[in-house]
Amino acid sequence: MRMSLSPFDLTHWLTAKTELVDRSLNRCLPKATAKPATIHEAMRYSIFAGGKRMRPALVLAAAEACGGTDEPALPLACAVECIHTYSLIHDDLPAMDDDDFRRGKPTNHKVFGEGIAVLAGDALLTQAFELVAGAAGWPRYSHRDLVLELAVASGSRQLIAGQVADLEAEGKDIPITQLRYIHERKTSALLCASVRLGGMSANCTSEELEALTNFGTHVGLAFQVIDDILDVTQSSETLGKTAGKDVEAQKATYPRLVGLEKSKKIAAELTRKAYASLETFNGRAVAMEALARYLLERNH
Amino acid sequence: MRMSLSPFDLTHWLTAKTELVDRSLNRCLPKATAKPATIHEAMRYSIFAGGKRMRPALVLAAAEACGGTDEPALPLACAVECIHTYSLIHDDLPAMDDDDFRRGKPTNHKVFGEGIAVLAGDALLTQAFELVAGAAGWPRYSHRDLVLELAVASGSRQLIAGQVADLEAEGKDIPITQLRYIHERKTSALLCASVRLGGMSANCTSEELEALTNFGTHVGLAFQVIDDILDVTQSSETLGKTAGKDVEAQKATYPRLVGLEKSKKIAAELTRKAYASLETFNGRAVAMEALARYLLERNH
Repeated sequence: MRMSLSPFDLTHWLTAKTELVDRSLNRCLPKATAKPATIHEAMRYSIFAGGKRMRPALVLAAAEACGGTDEPALPLACAVECIHTYSLIHDDLPAMDDDDFRRGKPTNHKVFGEGIAVLAGDALLTQAFELVAGAAGWPRYSHRDLVLELAVASGSRQLIAGQVADLEAEGKDIPITQLRYIHERKTSALLCASVRLGGMSANCTSEELEALTNFGTHVGLAFQVIDDILDVTQSSETLGKTAGKDVEAQKATYPRLVGLEKSKKIAAELTRKAYASLETFNGRAVAMEALARYLLERNH
Repeated sequence: MRMSLSPFDLTHWLTAKTELVDRSLNRCLPKATAKPATIHEAMRYSIFAGGKRMRPALVLAAAEACGGTDEPALPLACAVECIHTYSLIHDDLPAMDDDDFRRGKPTNHKVFGEGIAVLAGDALLTQAFELVAGAAGWPRYSHRDLVLELAVASGSRQLIAGQVADLEAEGKDIPITQLRYIHERKTSALLCASVRLGGMSANCTSEELEALTNFGTHVGLAFQVIDDILDVTQSSETLGKTAGKDVEAQKATYPRLVGLEKSKKIAAELTRKAYASLETFNGRAVAMEALARYLLERNH
């Protein structure tokens, strides 16, 4: 009887990595009792509000694919989660998307008030760079490279550009090229930085870094198309946030511009491209491939 | 006839350094036409809204005191100005201090709306770290040290802690120790980081770094006491912002807690301590001493 390799168990892997990241975030962030308590409670409230830790998981998966380990990648995994969480807190503010719920819980400003929510976002953004600076050094990539990577991906030409373009597209008819521009910046930029930082923590080659960039870009675009699709097809209960908000706000989305079926095909094609970019890793990118599959097949 | 050394001309020095910093900021920040234009216009609007460039001047003055030059200090000077400007934009928001005017001009959210103002602040905060990462290296202090210095000073236990404690003190009777806690964080932390970063760019000794820390802390505290005093004694026109706001908002201030005369004495004593810390530099800290004098004697 031929023995086969046991299939990769993503649920098991993801549970273990999420626990690792949560423990690390708990250790890295100032205690909730640290003075002034309000800001640290507010930071922790959103960081521990049940996020799926998809970006930290991608950091760790990329490190693994490049032959690295969790330990040097963890501060970077925590840093991208801080950036992601800050952007959600500010995005949920009344002056932006005006969301009352996120992952089934009241949004930061609904609990702590708008002033503290703005400051909690600022504090998490700042904390991200403190985490990168506080990490151990790497042979091929200096702290300078890591800080630059995170700052550019989160800055006014990438992540924030996406938020701005998204705000400005509301209620307007925009071409699909502009929608892709928004998705590339609002989602791909940080996913891309996540896998690249993971690779850097494993002292990856420039060829590996390029493959990670391709992977991150395509998974990011697919992720956002799926988010648009889920907003139309799922209930608020399943999503853990208000469903149908995009339609209500007349937001430009893939389903609105090209229809539901075409949107699903685009998402599948983007994911195929993401898989293709993993060939560089000669079978070492099992976690990354499983994560891509998980992101495409998720229903919330 | 005995020749005397010409006295240090602060106005001349400050004009030259401000021009240098403005040119550098203009070069470092994305152009106003860079896509999406709104965010870059908003960032530039507040950066070029007539700020006194006191923090960048302190960076350059500290570098000078430690035997350094402007060039390696400039990216750090621009970075602290980005941090300072972001904190003003967010501080002026309706959910915080709710200010309509700053330096005689409408505040960022009055011009661009609250959503863009939040994002412009975020973008400047992120830009600050991009600037530090993009600077040249230093022999004694790595990019890691510089990023950590800026992140800690701007983070939830320093600058942001000050904002939070300030928000929470509104309309309350707080002891003078708590007011000092607020000032140390809201103002001293970033001034302290400014002079320390300037020193680091000049590859300063640990003794010099300690003297700079003392200087920054005391000048920062003095600066804030004077701000409190000016809010009571000057008109809106002179200040370039709404005068008497602190009294109206029942904010805890030195004049409110200890009276005007005592406040002036405290400011003078703090400045004396700041001067004393400059003895380490054996007469090389002329610009820093002149700046301290300027900050104490200013009327707006």
